[in-house]
Order: sequence, then structure tokens, then C-alpha cells
Amino acid sequence: MKHARSALDEPLRDTRTLVIQLRDRIADLIRDEGLNPGDKLPTEAQLTARFKISRPALREALKLLEQDDIIYVEHGRGRFISAMSAVQVDRPITVFESVTDMARQYGYKPHNKVLSISEEAPEATVAKALHLKSGERVIRVERLRLENETPIMYCVDYVPRSIIPTRLYDIDWSGSLLSLLEQYKNRPRMSAASVAAVMLPDDVVARNDLRDFGPALLITETCFNAAGVPVNYAIDYHRGSHFTFSLVRK
Amino acid sequence: MKHARSALDEPLRDTRTLVIQLRDRIADLIRDEGLNPGDKLPTEAQLTARFKISRPALREALKLLEQDDIIYVEHGRGRFISAMSAVQVDRPITVFESVTDMARQYGYKPHNKVLSISEEAPEATVAKALHLKSGERVIRVERLRLENETPIMYCVDYVPRSIIPTRLYDIDWSGSLLSLLEQYKNRPRMSAASVAAVMLPDDVVARNDLRDFGPALLITETCFNAAGVPVNYAIDYHRGSHFTFSLVRK
Repeated sequence: MKHARSALDEPLRDTRTLVIQLRDRIADLIRDEGLNPGDKLPTEAQLTARFKISRPALREALKLLEQDDIIYVEHGRGRFISAMSAVQVDRPITVFESVTDMARQYGYKPHNKVLSISEEAPEATVAKALHLKSGERVIRVERLRLENETPIMYCVDYVPRSIIPTRLYDIDWSGSLLSLLEQYKNRPRMSAASVAAVMLPDDVVARNDLRDFGPALLITETCFNAAGVPVNYAIDYHRGSHFTFSLVRK
Repeated sequence: MKHARSALDEPLRDTRTLVIQLRDRIADLIRDEGLNPGDKLPTEAQLTARFKISRPALREALKLLEQDDIIYVEHGRGRFISAMSAVQVDRPITVFESVTDMARQYGYKPHNKVLSISEEAPEATVAKALHLKSGERVIRVERLRLENETPIMYCVDYVPRSIIPTRLYDIDWSGSLLSLLEQYKNRPRMSAASVAAVMLPDDVVARNDLRDFGPALLITETCFNAAGVPVNYAIDYHRGSHFTFSLVRK
């Protein structure tokens, strides 16, 4: 039986530069051929023949893979597959995505309960995170995410009022805030985040009957649009019993 | 007053390839000149003159910076500094380092209290993480890290017995396990980790009088040597009141 034409055989001609494409192709090859840590990478001659590229371009691509710890060099022996190719993690915490998408990846289809929406003068922490000028106001959205009847996240989001000037009650706050910000031309693209283990604040527990929530993974993050402007400050308590994030450390 | 000769002016001739060096130099330049998100990057002509490199090499380096979200392109207008340059985080959780070094970065100088050391048959989870063959044994080291008199971490480490064949009581287990593994030619270089918020296990609390520990940030990680062989399975409970990790998400 013949193999279907694989992505590896496609000509290299997308918009990224040759070296980056090559790096990705070689990484694909390592995965698709099931090469394991310690296995030898095909030789330069085999790779240049396979990808129909020059040796200098190949060497640049191999340097990138070496820098990413995908391969390592043993002088005189060749290039080998390193640990990083084995260190695959699903759903790394370092991927920026909406809470809605993140929860879905865990198999949850949470229902968003909006607890409160208000326009207010920001506290100092919020003003600083969002680079607000004196007098600028924010929208504060407080939500609980329930999986069936179980609360799995408690979230507070701040958005500069100037970004969403619409009347608050004209907006459906139960959906993805990321999508909403996209409608207002300010889709967050990345964030600076911190992670800690905490209990929910006492007043939140009391007001919302969350005594059984237990320890929470708190992710506090400032989200930036593509131009580097902070557009959302998010405080997300993930119920400890329901969320485990993965990551690669190197 | 003349500026001291900066790293930016050093000739490009270390062992990394030109494109990667250039990428790093330009990233240094963005930081050293205090360019902010939204600021325009110097032109290609200025950069080629400054770094004395060819335009094709420069363009490759700029592509890498674009791929890393350090700069972005507005067609017809040029290249600009993006959010990622502003999204600097200290001590990112994605940096692999010893617990000792990590704690030191938080300003702690914890004292390691060894609670137990044993050689044993591994539980299934441990055997799987360390890719152990049937019958292979592990060393289990259980330690408490105290800052002054306050417990700030509870750690359990597993190492394949074959890596450290020395008699257990001939080894000082109170130091860095990373350094110890390095002595045995198996320095961990990276890990696949998971992060969760939990309470300490009841038996650990009871045995060690840790009722006040509170919520813990649990990092469970399999650490690999440079050849991709797992050499350490670590279970680290970080006291929530004492640790906050940072990261960039994109």
C-alpha cells in the first residue's frame, strides 16, 4: 500500500523564509518518522536531497533546531534527536488562548454566569497593569463558570472603558471576552501572566456560596493587542480539582 | 562622556550562526535603546550598516524576530516593536533550574531538611515517568525546605538507582539534586512539567506537622538529560503564600 502524499513532500514556498520552513519540516520529519531521543538524524546529504535545498540553508535550519534543543551535536558522530522531541506536552500553559477555548480542551463546556458588570475608577494595580492615564475608567466583569452545576472557575476581567464605549447593558457578557475584544479591534494576542496557588478570597466565597471550591490555581495576566497595548487585565481562579496545566521547562 | 563599548559593537564571530546572532543583537538593541511597543525599528539600511552584514542575512534575522513576536510588520510602513518586547517577565516558570537556584531567586536561602531516603521498587507512575524496565529500582528522597523556621516547600524526588549506584548513606542529600546528578554525568537539562493547585496530602501534613502550610502550587516534572533520558521525577509542593511564578503566554 502506498503512503498518501505527506506534507513533508510539498514544495517549500510559503511566505516564511526558507530556513524557518526547513526547521519546521525537519521537526515534522522527526515526529512523523517516529525518531526517538538518542536516534541519529539523517545525514546532511540525505536531508539536502530530500528537501532539495542547499547545504548552507540546511545548516542554518539545523542550528535553529539545536538552539531549540530538538537535536544535539556529538562532534565526529553526527546529529542526534534530543530530549526536547520527547518532551511533548499537551495544552501548554504558555499558549495564549481564551478561557472558553482552554476549558473546552479539558473537555468542559462551561456555562458562564455573569455575577456583576460595572464601570468604575480602577484600583492602582489595575490602572498600572492597563497603563491607564489618570481619570481613565474601566469595565469590570465578574463571572463564574459552571460545568453542569459545579463552579470550576471564578474570573474577574478589567477592560479599559475607551476600548468598549458601548452601553454595558447592550452587550452579552456571557460569551468569550476575547471575541468581544476582537469585535472592538483589540484582540489580545499575548500576555504576561503570574501563577500562584491560593484559596478564593473570603468575600467571594461568602457572596457566592463557594465554600467547597478548595485550593485554586490563580492566573493573573495582562493581555496585549498586536501593537503592545494592554487591553485586558484578567484574574482567573481555576478550581484546583479540575485543572492541571502542563509546560516544558528548559 | 563617552559610552563604554557595548556588547552591541562586538564583532559577530561566536559559534552560533550569523542569523541567530543577529536576531539576538537586534533584540539587545531594542532593549538597550529603550524602544517601546509601537516604536519603529531602525531601517534595514541602518541595521545592515550597524551590524555590517548583508541584507539577506538581516532579513532572515528579522523574520525570526517577527516569528517570536518581538517585532511586527505593517506593510508599506515598516517594522515595529510589538507587545512581546514589553512582556518581560522575571523568573519565568519555563526556565529549567534547580529548586535551590529557584528559591534563591525569590530571596530565600532555604535549609534542606532530609525527611527520608530509601531505595525501593517504583510505583507505576514513577516507573512510567522514568521509563524504567521491570525490576529496576529507584532512590526516593523526601525533603522539606525551611526558610528560617518556616516550611516553604515539600519535595519528593525519584532517581533511577542505576544512575546513582553509591551507598545511600555515603551521599549528602541536603544539597542540590541537580548538582548531584551532574556529578554522576546525568545533569538534567529540561523537563516536562505539570502545574496544579492542591493541599498537601493528609499523611504528609500529619507526619510533619504541616497543618498551616495552606494551598500549594504543585509542580510535577520529569527531568531529562541532554540525550533525552529521564533521570529524575520530581514532585514539588511550593507553599502558595511564598511562591508566584511568572510566564509569557502567546
